[in-house]
Amino acid sequence: MINHDFIKEISLATPSKIVMLVIDGLGGLPDPKTGRSELETARLPHLDALSEKGVCGLADPVAPGITPGSGPGHLALFGYDPVSCKIGRGVLEAVGIDIELEAGDVAARGNFATVDDKGIVTDRRAGRISTEKCIELCKHLDGMTIDRVQVKVYPVREHRFVVLFRGDNLQTELTESDPSRTGVAPLEVKAVGTMARGTADIVNQFITKAKEILAKYHPANMILLRGFAKKPQLPTMPEVYKLKPLAIAIYPMYRGLARLVGMEVARTGKTLEDEFETLKENYAEHDFFFLHVKGTDSAGEDGDFARKVKILEQVDGLVPAITALEPDVLIVTGDHATPAVLGGHSWHAVPVLICARYCGPDAVKTFSETAFIAGGLGRIASQQIMTLAMANALKLAKYGA
Amino acid sequence: MINHDFIKEISLATPSKIVMLVIDGLGGLPDPKTGRSELETARLPHLDALSEKGVCGLADPVAPGITPGSGPGHLALFGYDPVSCKIGRGVLEAVGIDIELEAGDVAARGNFATVDDKGIVTDRRAGRISTEKCIELCKHLDGMTIDRVQVKVYPVREHRFVVLFRGDNLQTELTESDPSRTGVAPLEVKAVGTMARGTADIVNQFITKAKEILAKYHPANMILLRGFAKKPQLPTMPEVYKLKPLAIAIYPMYRGLARLVGMEVARTGKTLEDEFETLKENYAEHDFFFLHVKGTDSAGEDGDFARKVKILEQVDGLVPAITALEPDVLIVTGDHATPAVLGGHSWHAVPVLICARYCGPDAVKTFSETAFIAGGLGRIASQQIMTLAMANALKLAKYGA
Repeated sequence: MINHDFIKEISLATPSKIVMLVIDGLGGLPDPKTGRSELETARLPHLDALSEKGVCGLADPVAPGITPGSGPGHLALFGYDPVSCKIGRGVLEAVGIDIELEAGDVAARGNFATVDDKGIVTDRRAGRISTEKCIELCKHLDGMTIDRVQVKVYPVREHRFVVLFRGDNLQTELTESDPSRTGVAPLEVKAVGTMARGTADIVNQFITKAKEILAKYHPANMILLRGFAKKPQLPTMPEVYKLKPLAIAIYPMYRGLARLVGMEVARTGKTLEDEFETLKENYAEHDFFFLHVKGTDSAGEDGDFARKVKILEQVDGLVPAITALEPDVLIVTGDHATPAVLGGHSWHAVPVLICARYCGPDAVKTFSETAFIAGGLGRIASQQIMTLAMANALKLAKYGA
Repeated sequence: MINHDFIKEISLATPSKIVMLVIDGLGGLPDPKTGRSELETARLPHLDALSEKGVCGLADPVAPGITPGSGPGHLALFGYDPVSCKIGRGVLEAVGIDIELEAGDVAARGNFATVDDKGIVTDRRAGRISTEKCIELCKHLDGMTIDRVQVKVYPVREHRFVVLFRGDNLQTELTESDPSRTGVAPLEVKAVGTMARGTADIVNQFITKAKEILAKYHPANMILLRGFAKKPQLPTMPEVYKLKPLAIAIYPMYRGLARLVGMEVARTGKTLEDEFETLKENYAEHDFFFLHVKGTDSAGEDGDFARKVKILEQVDGLVPAITALEPDVLIVTGDHATPAVLGGHSWHAVPVLICARYCGPDAVKTFSETAFIAGGLGRIASQQIMTLAMANALKLAKYGA
């Protein structure tokens, strides 16, 4: 696979613009009743028209057979090797709420939870307390120093928060305190190997103190921690591609991912329409746009075939808002498939469409998984999409004499 | 990717013969007026017939999105990794005119150029002086010794020559003296890093002396140097594949590339017909033939769609000269695409056709980019073509028990 040093040598800063529309969980599977997938069920006139103009194919986010999480799926789309570039959940959550992580910081995802008088978890989300309550409780926990390690606590939304440990020699090889189910006590955090023993001790001290402080705040009388991670040192998209990239995403995690690869993050609203409007407003100032659509994945995760179809149609209706900007390159793809019939992410290859002046069109006329099998891109790795986007934007110099 | 040590262990010397017809810049893009590419416009009855008999596909010379130069494009076709095997332009030019490079030699491409009385470049090609003049001027520059480094100067054609530095500890991390444009003075050659400072000094001394010598030979009163390089140490095709390969090419660079991988180079004439005649004459003595067609690439580079179509038809007319020899394996492909509408090399995947007794034909009946999308080879790396050629020639033993 082509690496970043290679791309860095041949990438060119030019005025041409690339829009990457990422429809989260794009690919699906046939509804057994109709034999048609979500894409084949939806009425998608604008995406069909793009298929006819562009070159299509299927992309494997990680490798055939591997079901990716959102992290690996997006890293691949941004041109990073999703196997060697690992990003922990704690880091994702932290960067998603604008926390500036320093190199040795360890971040973790936290849940406020409910335990009974025997210490058994009865609700892993503390009845989904309000975000206001979350903000208040985080203030009580924030600012401790344990064995010279600073502990910062940041609210996210509802029962979710981020905890950040800042100090020397902190390690991330830690087990989770979240038992992932009710009816049992929270787990002690343990070091995997000997290196992280000191860190495990500090985390456990923090949990003990938090429990004491929260005792009077039932139902949020306990915390559960998971996803201990440090910020990875990735070459940024501006460095590698010489792009000035902008991320437009409603959900924090996707903004966080974009920040980790050096994208600026746009302020946007809470609806799909807001995101497309944000694209338009910021179009002059950037040359790469990552536009993230979340609803398709959520519907797929909920096993709601009809809702996924509806959101696909809603996205299709917004496609003209992109094409009206006349980007030099328009990519439409997803970070992974989320077939409603599976109710979760899956390993299936994801449709990918590239529309550009010199894309070299194929015979595909329909935006669907099966139609794209015959596409001119064939079956590629998602990690190669960025290189193709750059090539189609005429932003890559010839390699070698 | 399969490496050479792997192939070496399973390759077999057999009497079967492989012809690899490389149509330089083969792939194209649709003419916006007709919607048809060069291949789709040309009348190619013989290539169409081969498509019907053979197995087809699309090949990426380097990786999807990467536009290759001729060097990487050909290395990939010969089965070498075009990213790890780098060949500098100076070396290519040198081996193309039969210079035997020794291991530490540094070769560079030279141009005779014109500078005005202020030393500003007014013509980077000295009015394209005749090859005879080039030969004469090279004699004046040839044979210096600078700080115990021998400097040899060889004419190529018109304004082009090769300069070879032979001595101890010469390095290639040097900037070019060619400013790549007129209206400025030639650049001083500088070391990139500290290792090459001594070499930079020698090169600059040579340029200064050359300028003194050439002062009276206006318009060829200056030289411009670029592409400083040493010969790479590649395992040869006879070693890896146990083949006795022959290269047939009109242009020096392609003969040079073939020599670097251990091919013999045939004497041939100046026309396409000459090359096909050379194939016939040498057919008994070799078992692998690299037959290079240059005109398609030149026409593409010139943005001349109609000429590219015409040359494709001319090549098609010569295909029976190959099939009459009944090679066991016939490969038809290109080193990269050169769409006339782009007027240069491009990143698009290149058609590849394998015709052999056991190739496993597909349903493709037309020799074109879009028809080949549905080919049985799918989308492969150009580096894999040689292995497929060997397999189809029954020259690879089973791997593993």
